[in-house]
Amino acid sequence: MIGTDKMGHTYPGATVPFGSIQLSPDTDTIPYAVDGKYNPEVYKYCAGYQYDDTTIVGFSHTHFSGTGHSDLGDFLLMPTTGSLKLNPGTESNPEMGYRSRFSHKTEKAEPAYYKVDLDDYNIKAELTATTRVGMHRYTFPKTKESHLILDLMSGIYNYDEKNVWTFVRVENDTLVTGYRQTNGWARTRTVYFAMSFSQPITQYGHAKYDKTPYKGFWRKFDESKNFPEMAGEKVRAYFDFETKEDKPLLIKFSISPVSTQGALKNMQAEIPHWDFDRIKKEGQEKWNTELSKVQIVASEDTKVNFYTSMYHAFLGPTEYMDVDQQYRGLDMNVHSANGFTNYTSFSLWDTYRALHPLFNILQPDRNRDMIRSMMAHYYQSVHHMLPIWSHYANENWCMIGYHSVSVIADAIVKEILTGKEAHEALAACVQTAQTKYYDGLGNYMDLGYVPEDLNGSSVSKTLEYSYDDWAISQAAKKLGNMEIYNMFKQRAENYKNVYDSTSGFMRPRLSNGEFKEKFDPLDTHGQGFIEGNAWNYSLYVPHHPKKLIELMGGEERFVSRLDSLFSMELPDKYFEKTEDISREGIIGNYVHGNEPSHHVLYLYNWTHQAFKSHDKIRKVLTEMYKSTPDGLGGNDDFGQMSAWYIFSSLGFYPVAPGSTTYAIGSPSIEVAQIQLANEKTFVIETKNQSAQNVFVSHIEHDGIPLKKPFITHEDILKGGTLTFYMSDKPNPNYMNFN
Amino acid sequence: MIGTDKMGHTYPGATVPFGSIQLSPDTDTIPYAVDGKYNPEVYKYCAGYQYDDTTIVGFSHTHFSGTGHSDLGDFLLMPTTGSLKLNPGTESNPEMGYRSRFSHKTEKAEPAYYKVDLDDYNIKAELTATTRVGMHRYTFPKTKESHLILDLMSGIYNYDEKNVWTFVRVENDTLVTGYRQTNGWARTRTVYFAMSFSQPITQYGHAKYDKTPYKGFWRKFDESKNFPEMAGEKVRAYFDFETKEDKPLLIKFSISPVSTQGALKNMQAEIPHWDFDRIKKEGQEKWNTELSKVQIVASEDTKVNFYTSMYHAFLGPTEYMDVDQQYRGLDMNVHSANGFTNYTSFSLWDTYRALHPLFNILQPDRNRDMIRSMMAHYYQSVHHMLPIWSHYANENWCMIGYHSVSVIADAIVKEILTGKEAHEALAACVQTAQTKYYDGLGNYMDLGYVPEDLNGSSVSKTLEYSYDDWAISQAAKKLGNMEIYNMFKQRAENYKNVYDSTSGFMRPRLSNGEFKEKFDPLDTHGQGFIEGNAWNYSLYVPHHPKKLIELMGGEERFVSRLDSLFSMELPDKYFEKTEDISREGIIGNYVHGNEPSHHVLYLYNWTHQAFKSHDKIRKVLTEMYKSTPDGLGGNDDFGQMSAWYIFSSLGFYPVAPGSTTYAIGSPSIEVAQIQLANEKTFVIETKNQSAQNVFVSHIEHDGIPLKKPFITHEDILKGGTLTFYMSDKPNPNYMNFN
Repeated sequence: MIGTDKMGHTYPGATVPFGSIQLSPDTDTIPYAVDGKYNPEVYKYCAGYQYDDTTIVGFSHTHFSGTGHSDLGDFLLMPTTGSLKLNPGTESNPEMGYRSRFSHKTEKAEPAYYKVDLDDYNIKAELTATTRVGMHRYTFPKTKESHLILDLMSGIYNYDEKNVWTFVRVENDTLVTGYRQTNGWARTRTVYFAMSFSQPITQYGHAKYDKTPYKGFWRKFDESKNFPEMAGEKVRAYFDFETKEDKPLLIKFSISPVSTQGALKNMQAEIPHWDFDRIKKEGQEKWNTELSKVQIVASEDTKVNFYTSMYHAFLGPTEYMDVDQQYRGLDMNVHSANGFTNYTSFSLWDTYRALHPLFNILQPDRNRDMIRSMMAHYYQSVHHMLPIWSHYANENWCMIGYHSVSVIADAIVKEILTGKEAHEALAACVQTAQTKYYDGLGNYMDLGYVPEDLNGSSVSKTLEYSYDDWAISQAAKKLGNMEIYNMFKQRAENYKNVYDSTSGFMRPRLSNGEFKEKFDPLDTHGQGFIEGNAWNYSLYVPHHPKKLIELMGGEERFVSRLDSLFSMELPDKYFEKTEDISREGIIGNYVHGNEPSHHVLYLYNWTHQAFKSHDKIRKVLTEMYKSTPDGLGGNDDFGQMSAWYIFSSLGFYPVAPGSTTYAIGSPSIEVAQIQLANEKTFVIETKNQSAQNVFVSHIEHDGIPLKKPFITHEDILKGGTLTFYMSDKPNPNYMNFN
Repeated sequence: MIGTDKMGHTYPGATVPFGSIQLSPDTDTIPYAVDGKYNPEVYKYCAGYQYDDTTIVGFSHTHFSGTGHSDLGDFLLMPTTGSLKLNPGTESNPEMGYRSRFSHKTEKAEPAYYKVDLDDYNIKAELTATTRVGMHRYTFPKTKESHLILDLMSGIYNYDEKNVWTFVRVENDTLVTGYRQTNGWARTRTVYFAMSFSQPITQYGHAKYDKTPYKGFWRKFDESKNFPEMAGEKVRAYFDFETKEDKPLLIKFSISPVSTQGALKNMQAEIPHWDFDRIKKEGQEKWNTELSKVQIVASEDTKVNFYTSMYHAFLGPTEYMDVDQQYRGLDMNVHSANGFTNYTSFSLWDTYRALHPLFNILQPDRNRDMIRSMMAHYYQSVHHMLPIWSHYANENWCMIGYHSVSVIADAIVKEILTGKEAHEALAACVQTAQTKYYDGLGNYMDLGYVPEDLNGSSVSKTLEYSYDDWAISQAAKKLGNMEIYNMFKQRAENYKNVYDSTSGFMRPRLSNGEFKEKFDPLDTHGQGFIEGNAWNYSLYVPHHPKKLIELMGGEERFVSRLDSLFSMELPDKYFEKTEDISREGIIGNYVHGNEPSHHVLYLYNWTHQAFKSHDKIRKVLTEMYKSTPDGLGGNDDFGQMSAWYIFSSLGFYPVAPGSTTYAIGSPSIEVAQIQLANEKTFVIETKNQSAQNVFVSHIEHDGIPLKKPFITHEDILKGGTLTFYMSDKPNPNYMNFN
């Protein structure tokens, strides 16, 4: 349940690792906007569920985990009894509609299993899932008035015209098929389904809420009842059953990106029986396999947070293809994933930082297939670009940079992507980085920075392009392509072009070369940044910390700057404008809840005061991640926040993906065994570990003292043991030799 | 051009026999309704073209021929020069928009070729087509300001929300792909396209007219210009070219029911070059092959009308699959037409009467494949029903009856459909005829008639179900299934249940068994009929003429009734309410422009005064079919009116499809040679033929005098010669021996 309250944006429902189905309760489905006016309340419902809510609207089959914008929420099912209601009602007046009150007391959220009692109907609802099929078990009271609502208008980040079309066929009295097409975050998106019941429908029907005036010759029929073909923009259907207490209604609900035929294939392949408990058990075994890739000894609280983070980290990207490897591509044609598993939902601005590097250690095969999926996207893209933020055959263009190149470069330098594939991926990176019409990139290429007068958030973009370009250069170097290396090595220096030595901050620059005059380094709005102010974002040169330190006036000034960031107070008027974050997501002016600062504490490692990071990292681990529903200090961002937790609690962090070097921090575990894909084990152990003993005095690698606060990917792959000696006081000589 | 003025609803554009592409000028694209209010003017534009109009909006790729309701008009292209206009403008003020004035003087409409000058732009436009690809040749003046408009909002029977979604990709500077999804007569319909240019685009863009409030992260871009991905509900795109007088712009435009990949495959397979004249020549050769299946000697006027009828008869149903046999089915899944050509656009209420029987003589292989297409529809239908009026993977439920069974039965009794296939088709007929929720059918099955108080047009439905049931019985008899034969033989008598001996008319009956009190046999509205009044429709018992004559009081009264029908005057107040018909479509109270009377004149053959049909048939042939744009007395109805002309001018007519017998009338040709699929030739010749000599004195079949005014399908298949001896006076002893 961690992250289901406030800003975490996680969902508590049933899913398997990287599963296409995320079958989860929605506690409200409020509109994103009505008549064009944005509804700020919608933000709470990115994952459909808010812990404080007292009613459940129903159980839908697709959810993003932890995103800061949203979509999905497809195919909401809700079991009810008594008189039929087809509208969802409101939380304050649930009787008005089909929703039900519930209590956390009857709620149980486990990997691949969710259970709750729907109090208004005396129905026990249980959910489990395979990769492509959700399974529902509804224990109704004995009655002839049991209904199942299929609300095709319901959705997450729903608005007036998000529904483009829906199509439903009642194939027979236990099988329904159809699809829904939406225009949401994904502009042109269709999901197909097949739904099978364990007992026959007694009757069924639907209501349509379309404005469409033309009814054609359909007026011949009473379409609303027992008519097996439904279609329209806005459809809500119901299916009635005669139920008994001792014979729950079971439902298999499969989805497909291709067709209803595909959904049926998926159902037949993944759940060819009606054994709910077996599916639950198999799902939990899958989770155990994934979660036990890192086995830790730690305090109970750390364990809970650690494995919750592991769980969240392995929720996405999600598989996106049928059991026969077919999927719908960006060109809306059906493609086949030949020799790889196709994934979707790449929240790359977040996940390139630590999640994909984590996969390079714990899920290298999946990460390779994720890159193959990104390459398939590239080949299908009419822009000839790698994904920015892509889901379900759509590019939604969310956030900035072109961080696919970071994921690819990291996999190339770590030899997860090799040979011809690596060269092809590098070519895709180069092509992507030269798309002049993309988000200020043409100006960046011409001027060496994005000018604020021509393109907003210009400093953030310049800094991130600059890092991405460095990542490309590193991949090119690894592959021996020196022409590309030199070209992008040069571009990697572009961060310097937005550094204003007068203010000491990265600062927006205009197309005439001058810095923008009005400038407030505490404000996150209109200052040339996005999801971060100049204080935080000016430190975003993960690829050249040494050069950044020089640029900013040397080590002393730099360390004091980092110290201040953590200790200063961000005035309320600035906090209020900080995106996506609760007060709990901030320490001083350090904003952990948004990603641009995730590497910042580790920058101490490039100074002679590396120990200064230790207590701060531990403070973040403790204060920003709590084992309560409101325990996350910000959106989990599809696993990035969790990946930060996992790395940091293990004692190291990938400051610049695209490098094989990890910066060392302060581990919070006692022992951790990391099971590697090469069958070796990398062990981290701490001596004298406690909540107080957060400073690392020294470190041994297989018994040999570590001289620099860094380890490499090669070190990890070799297996071995890293031993941290902990203390309650900083060791001023810690690694003080670089 | 025949039928392009007034009510004919034919289109003058380029197409090949039964082609998927009907590339034709649209002279207006007025809305079907705005804000739910029907616009009666739209009816004129069923085929997109009205001869009286003075402007052309553009050239779209799909058109129905002769229908009385409509859809399609997909992918309107319009070449323009000068300043860019993205709205179509109006006929009274064409300068406001992109449309152009034109003159019939520069217009040329040939099979597979259409040409016109667009006067406002000094552009010569030429069109030709293959089955799945339209080819445009636009000769522009020399200018850098040449545009091609692709108006994705344009359509036939368009209304506020007909457009559901459009999606366009500019793949490169000579290739564009995409699709359009509509909710029109077909509720859920998508057509995909690929468009290739003979020279590169210099620039391009689009405008969007959506109400959709959510723009997502697309606001990052100026989507309107040179941005290769367009999507939305309402999109108009343009593509600019630099043109020269001596180098026309050529465009290949292919469509697919499956995908843009499919459209590309079709283009590559059917037009792998840029030779417009070759495509035109090949198209005209295809037409010559089809049209020369009947070679006639006749007056010039008869020849023009005859071959125009042949042309119209071979326009549809249209092929509906890609070159690889794939098509989208009723369940919206992609299916493969294994071993047959899949067809769509079955206007069966019209075409079962004479068009499909004509195909059984001239196009038996195509007709068999049409039935296979109908069977594929049946297998995909969630209603488990054969098509009523189907197009593009949709059942639009237009008109009444279930006349697929007539087409199937006729093919079975004529041994065009045999063996296992015939038995399966019979089973589909039986299943279709037992769909109780369909259009009063449950009541019909229970009561023996459709009660008017429960279901409108009840008499028409009863009569047509009754005929269809007889057709099923005949197919069952042919296949030796006596159980089905007996069951439907019984149902075939149901016409008697709506005969009111008091009034002497078929008359609406209520569910309590009584006849409806208020009843006006001249009125077509609210009297229990559709597209016909009681005078016409009461004669609709094509399967039991003898019994009908008895029912109506014997031969004398029946003949006088037929005489009256043709000679009486239909008062204006009744004419005004008659659907789909101009005054030219009526002789007396005989309404030839609507189908229910098409067999009526041939009913004289079941009396001792068969000769009475001769002058009347000739009158219809002469007066209802003229070789002028306004030459058709009513909608051509996808070839049914034309098929009547072809049969009647050859001297025989299939009164009751499902029987192998044809009734003989009065041929208007001098000689006709019908080339049969079995390589034999059936010859019809007339002696003493003239416009005055319309009465047949006697007939010889291969020299042997014919004793009854009927021939059989077997007679035709044997080949041989039917010789008609004509006179300017009736022969009162003509066939007077039955």
